[in-house]
Amino acid sequence: MDDAAMIPAVNEDKAALATSFVKCLVRLLRAQDSYGAWEGKPDPELLADFIVTKEQRREIPIIGDPDPDVLWRLDVYYTAVGLAIEERTGLMASPMMKISHEGFGRVLLTAGRLVVLSKTLRDVHRFGFETFRTLAEAGTRLVDDAIAAIEIYPDAARA
Amino acid sequence: MDDAAMIPAVNEDKAALATSFVKCLVRLLRAQDSYGAWEGKPDPELLADFIVTKEQRREIPIIGDPDPDVLWRLDVYYTAVGLAIEERTGLMASPMMKISHEGFGRVLLTAGRLVVLSKTLRDVHRFGFETFRTLAEAGTRLVDDAIAAIEIYPDAARA
Repeated sequence: MDDAAMIPAVNEDKAALATSFVKCLVRLLRAQDSYGAWEGKPDPELLADFIVTKEQRREIPIIGDPDPDVLWRLDVYYTAVGLAIEERTGLMASPMMKISHEGFGRVLLTAGRLVVLSKTLRDVHRFGFETFRTLAEAGTRLVDDAIAAIEIYPDAARA
Repeated sequence: MDDAAMIPAVNEDKAALATSFVKCLVRLLRAQDSYGAWEGKPDPELLADFIVTKEQRREIPIIGDPDPDVLWRLDVYYTAVGLAIEERTGLMASPMMKISHEGFGRVLLTAGRLVVLSKTLRDVHRFGFETFRTLAEAGTRLVDDAIAAIEIYPDAARA
C-alpha cells in the first residue's frame, strides 16, 4: 500500500511503475516477448492496455463478451499478484481462473493448502484501471491481503 | 473407506450404492432431473455412464477430446465429493475445475480458506470407473482425505 501513497501527482506514474507489483507485471509481460519485438518499448507502453480511462470505459458496452486479449491481461495480472507474493514470502502462489464466455467468473490463488486470494470477477470485458496509480494500488492491495492471510495461517500455506 | 470394504462380492454393488458418497452423487443427479424423466429409473441405471469397463476403455482412443457429457459427469462427481464433505463436517466445500479442450486440467475443492482437495486431471475423455465399488471407493477416499485436511487445519477451513 504505502509503495504508491503520498507522492506528488506529477511523480505518480513513476512511483506506480516502481512498485514491486507493477515490476512483476512488467517482468511477466516481457517474458512473453519471445521474439524481442517489445525490447525498445518502455514500461508504460507495455502496460498501456491495462489502462482504461473513464472516457474509454464509457464507450465500452455495459454487457459484452470478453475477447482473448482482455482474458490474457486478466491472467497476467493475477499471475503477477502470485509472483509478487512469492517474492515477498518465498511461497509459490498459483492462480486458477475460471471465466464464463460472458465475462463472469472467479479467480483463486493458492499457496500450499491455503487460499490466499479468492475473488469473484464480473464485467471482465471492461477490465482495466484508470491510472497507473490505481493499477499499482489495486495489485499491491491484493498482494498485501494475501500475505496477511499467509501470516495468519502459515502452516496451511506451507503444507 | 470402510463403507465399501469387506463385503462379499455378490453384495458389492449394493454396498457401493449405499455409501454416503454415492448417495450424494445420486442426489445431485436426481436434482438435475427437472422434468421427472428419471423418476422411475433405479440408481444403478442413473449411474451407468460413470461405469467404464476394461473392454469399453479399450475401445476409447488413448488421446481424445472430452465431450460435454463426460465433462458434466466429472463436474457432478467432484460436486458430490464436496456435498459429502459438507454432510460430514458442516463446511461447504465448493469445487473449481478447469479442463482444457484436450482433457487436461485441475480441480480444486476449497472450504473457507483451505484447499481440501487439489488434483491434476488427465485423459478426462476416459473418465469412469470399472465397477460401482471402485466408483464408491475412489469418491470416499477423496472425501476422507479432505476431512483429514480439515481436521489438521480447522481454523483455515472455518475462515
